[in-house]
Amino acid sequence: MTDRPKTPLLDTIQRPADMKRLSDEQLWQLADEVRHETVSAVSVTGGHLGAGLGVVELTVALHAVFDTPRDKIVWDVGHQCYPHKILTERRDRIRTLRQKDGLSGFTKRSESPYDPFGAAHSSTSISAALGFAVARDLGGVTPEGLGDAIAVIGDGSMSAGMAYEAMNNAGDLGKRLIVILNDNEMSIAPPVGAMSSYLSRLYAEEPFQEFKAAAKGAVSLLPHPFREGARRAKDILKGMAVGGTLFEQLGFSYLGPIDGHDMDQLLPVLRTVKARATGPILIHVLTKKGKGYAPAEESADRGHARAKFDVITGEQKKAPSNAPSYTNVFAQHLMKEAADDDKICAITAAMPDGTGLNLFAERYPSRCFDVGIAEQHGVTFSAALAAGGMKPFCTMYSTFLQRGYDQVVHDVAIQRLPVRFAIDRAGLVGADGATHAGAFDVAFLANLPGFVVMAAADEAELAHMVATAAAHDDGPIAFRFPRGEGTGVEMPERGTPLEIGKGRMIREGGRVAILSFGTRLSEVEAACESLQAKGITPTVADARFAKPLDRALILQLAADHEALITIEEGAVGGFGSHVAQLLAEEGVFDEGLKYRSMVLPDTFIDQSSPADMYATARLSAKDIEAKVLDVLGVSRIDAERA
Amino acid sequence: MTDRPKTPLLDTIQRPADMKRLSDEQLWQLADEVRHETVSAVSVTGGHLGAGLGVVELTVALHAVFDTPRDKIVWDVGHQCYPHKILTERRDRIRTLRQKDGLSGFTKRSESPYDPFGAAHSSTSISAALGFAVARDLGGVTPEGLGDAIAVIGDGSMSAGMAYEAMNNAGDLGKRLIVILNDNEMSIAPPVGAMSSYLSRLYAEEPFQEFKAAAKGAVSLLPHPFREGARRAKDILKGMAVGGTLFEQLGFSYLGPIDGHDMDQLLPVLRTVKARATGPILIHVLTKKGKGYAPAEESADRGHARAKFDVITGEQKKAPSNAPSYTNVFAQHLMKEAADDDKICAITAAMPDGTGLNLFAERYPSRCFDVGIAEQHGVTFSAALAAGGMKPFCTMYSTFLQRGYDQVVHDVAIQRLPVRFAIDRAGLVGADGATHAGAFDVAFLANLPGFVVMAAADEAELAHMVATAAAHDDGPIAFRFPRGEGTGVEMPERGTPLEIGKGRMIREGGRVAILSFGTRLSEVEAACESLQAKGITPTVADARFAKPLDRALILQLAADHEALITIEEGAVGGFGSHVAQLLAEEGVFDEGLKYRSMVLPDTFIDQSSPADMYATARLSAKDIEAKVLDVLGVSRIDAERA
Repeated sequence: MTDRPKTPLLDTIQRPADMKRLSDEQLWQLADEVRHETVSAVSVTGGHLGAGLGVVELTVALHAVFDTPRDKIVWDVGHQCYPHKILTERRDRIRTLRQKDGLSGFTKRSESPYDPFGAAHSSTSISAALGFAVARDLGGVTPEGLGDAIAVIGDGSMSAGMAYEAMNNAGDLGKRLIVILNDNEMSIAPPVGAMSSYLSRLYAEEPFQEFKAAAKGAVSLLPHPFREGARRAKDILKGMAVGGTLFEQLGFSYLGPIDGHDMDQLLPVLRTVKARATGPILIHVLTKKGKGYAPAEESADRGHARAKFDVITGEQKKAPSNAPSYTNVFAQHLMKEAADDDKICAITAAMPDGTGLNLFAERYPSRCFDVGIAEQHGVTFSAALAAGGMKPFCTMYSTFLQRGYDQVVHDVAIQRLPVRFAIDRAGLVGADGATHAGAFDVAFLANLPGFVVMAAADEAELAHMVATAAAHDDGPIAFRFPRGEGTGVEMPERGTPLEIGKGRMIREGGRVAILSFGTRLSEVEAACESLQAKGITPTVADARFAKPLDRALILQLAADHEALITIEEGAVGGFGSHVAQLLAEEGVFDEGLKYRSMVLPDTFIDQSSPADMYATARLSAKDIEAKVLDVLGVSRIDAERA
Repeated sequence: MTDRPKTPLLDTIQRPADMKRLSDEQLWQLADEVRHETVSAVSVTGGHLGAGLGVVELTVALHAVFDTPRDKIVWDVGHQCYPHKILTERRDRIRTLRQKDGLSGFTKRSESPYDPFGAAHSSTSISAALGFAVARDLGGVTPEGLGDAIAVIGDGSMSAGMAYEAMNNAGDLGKRLIVILNDNEMSIAPPVGAMSSYLSRLYAEEPFQEFKAAAKGAVSLLPHPFREGARRAKDILKGMAVGGTLFEQLGFSYLGPIDGHDMDQLLPVLRTVKARATGPILIHVLTKKGKGYAPAEESADRGHARAKFDVITGEQKKAPSNAPSYTNVFAQHLMKEAADDDKICAITAAMPDGTGLNLFAERYPSRCFDVGIAEQHGVTFSAALAAGGMKPFCTMYSTFLQRGYDQVVHDVAIQRLPVRFAIDRAGLVGADGATHAGAFDVAFLANLPGFVVMAAADEAELAHMVATAAAHDDGPIAFRFPRGEGTGVEMPERGTPLEIGKGRMIREGGRVAILSFGTRLSEVEAACESLQAKGITPTVADARFAKPLDRALILQLAADHEALITIEEGAVGGFGSHVAQLLAEEGVFDEGLKYRSMVLPDTFIDQSSPADMYATARLSAKDIEAKVLDVLGVSRIDAERA
């Protein structure tokens, strides 16, 4: 690893209170040192780099001006919080970011009082800050007190409806509330949508307009030197005149845009706002994602997320991969289907790279729609595309599909529209931790009438499920697959549509049957190898479908074995619960069946490697083996002796 | 009932194509006749009255100008669609609205090709219309063809984030798309939020401004007579100058506001838009909810929803009620808690009357927050209020809580914040039908780590659950209760906090135990009475909690009986599935247990009375009785003989 950077001033700062004695010049220096420390830490841990580098000065300025943790800074998404963590009693653990037992890669309430409201999904910060502002005014009590409420939200996050809902409510309530729009023209991918164009226009060439009525409210909030005709003041007033319209219509005072890397702008503006703000105010700050680290600034994604890397060259250290990623298999096979069928189109919500739809968009630009961070709209838009005779693949991470749940129920399921849901990042996801786990989708989809719900056991199965979804025109269909690499199975050139509601036998054995749904299958097979050495040969089947269930297969497995174990990468209420309901209604339990359902445990699991998280969840090969031995009443010692 | 109105012109209209031969004067007359017919129909059926009366002229004008069903009119929410149904081949069934086997009270794809996209929840129409516009331009195929896509959305629906998400995406895509903002300054309740104030300002007194750059795009869309200096044209241009800012910033051309009851404004504007629109355009139409029917116009809710009524007097015919409604019990007991604890506050999303929070707001105005149609924000706002030391009761219908699901997971559950979810309209709801069913909340909440999930068996239990929630500070807690009246049990003056995770025995019996979760308990008791006459005396328990389960109670019931039956007002994946998981893991099935789980069937159930819908769902007393007989292997005939 690289040497630690020299950080003499930062070394004297344990917490924001220590910054109060620093001069403005020293705050400039502190920002530089925080930037070096951030780059150094992420080079060791990997993680979100660009977003944090873009807000180094803003972080220093906020903590210098406001009184945290009494004042509440709510970082939207929270992936830009590494500099914030460095300054808030967590520098000693900053090189454990996103590691097992280390710091979270996002803000997290349980980690620090300086994280008053955790995040990871986008666009929650204005709602949260408004809640703190209202609680303050109602006499709410917290251990750290309740002062100012400050949301820091990126321009990409502003495409989500809930940010607008919160602005609409905040503008109406009129409480003192500070929203900092961190405008870097990039969320993960370049942002899309009309709001983004609007923000661009705010600081593009427009005819300069003198003080307008719209901007009047904010002028009194301008710090003094700014009001004295300097060129910069002119620019700010220009921005206020133009930008005031939209945000002021929603009841906010608008201030900006200001340069988010210039402490001489940030500090006086924040101090003036702190001294004088009464109602809700939006401060528009321009920043550069990846700022100050050339390898990040020069890359297309501005250093959004990085594996461990060399600080000097920026080169990432990635383990060589043996199998294609599920994401890539999905994208490649969707393109094959699209080549033959011009009705196939793809929709995502600000996840083009993460879902592989960037590849689809290159080949079929007119049939690919990135709607921005807007899952609710994305789902209903997909439903109407289906009603209009298209074959939409609505492609989202499991955890983000939660955002569009009502639309899945109301617009897709009730209308029985053939939307294809491609659900990436199903199950436990690794370094992103509990907030990104895809734990609930099977439970919340499989009880919707008319839905077909599949899970791929390996990457070849995924190819078949893409083909199955493309061919299925009778109502909605979903297929889920995990983050990461496949198992290395031989791949078909093209997927073949599966028979709806039919599972497959993997191996015939006796006494116990294991019915797997999803990619735990490889762990099941590993468990079977170990069990075989102990004289136990389970039957193994891949359910493929949580809905409709393969009733014949399940009832046969139950009839032919003394025990039946289901396993899935999801919470209770999903696949295993549907199997139990079938077995109960068919009277299979009446005469006795050793039935067990292995599901995610009733706890949120912190970040680690996926394999380690599944070990924590007790869904690994050795847990499966133990479950088989337990259900058959064979002690481990007996089994060893056998 | 009242005499049918005379409708000579309407009698000649079966479908919109028949309107093409009418003169503009005749269209005025047709609108009058449609209004009379609407009032007459709703007087017989009950239903949403005010919204439909507000759009009579708009409905007639849209169908006169556009070519439905090739052109797609998407009515937001759909409760204003009665005039539309009268004009689109459904007049012969209009007096079956909201009745069993009758017309739906909302738009519904399966009902008519003139309903291209059904609704019932708000704010989906722009997403849907954009989907049709894109499908059209991609060559999508539907039986009726694909022409113009027109969303008609109320101002109240504009507070929802997904409407903004859709505008943002539509403005970016630039497709020809028509959005009609039906601005009546009322959704169900008076709308809240900054957007609402903004819309009010659009037509309030403002200094008149001549053609502004912002309005330029739309001027060419003004019909000819309007551009000739008439006073009305001036007003429209004034609106365009002011209103243009917000919507045009999002990429829409803006036209309006125009008088939505004046066919001489509606017809030329719609004709010109049809002839000339290229990209997305927003037409701002001012209407009056309840227009043209004095008893509606004069009521506070503008005739939003009505029981059957007398056409002349407007007086509603309501059956006398014997027991208080669950909604009222909730509100009264929440106010009792709030009287003793100034940290208790209440949040709803545009459902103040429906949830009883209007009463709470009167008594505690500073502690009651109606955030508008904005469930996502409402949930996260509640989470932050909890983080700020308040005790928020987030009060929503089950079906609308689906809108905030990700926020429940990400902001409440993962952070273990003590938000109290008061879930009204749990289970089947009657005339509002499948779209409003509260079928999924137990399944989607009970598998969230740290959640407490309760259901009230009667109104006294509800009082206790309000007290339980108020006292519970260790993480989130939810309690659900149905629409309608309680069972008439004796009410406690105040609720008493229940022990978390403890059910209660209702009656001790033998052979079979019935474990009820929620208000099916009264049906269970009715079944038991009937069974007792046949010599079978089931044990009955009220689970109270789906999470945490009363493990001791459940295992004891299983141990002491040959059969155990659970029953709930929800879909599979909920209470019964959690019980099954417990029984499986404890090995109870190993030796045999006649276990059955009675849940909502795997189908969406159309509107009828709740009792009738539960009969369809096979969750009535006689179904419970049949299940008991079946599981015990007693034929009905044997039972009769016993």
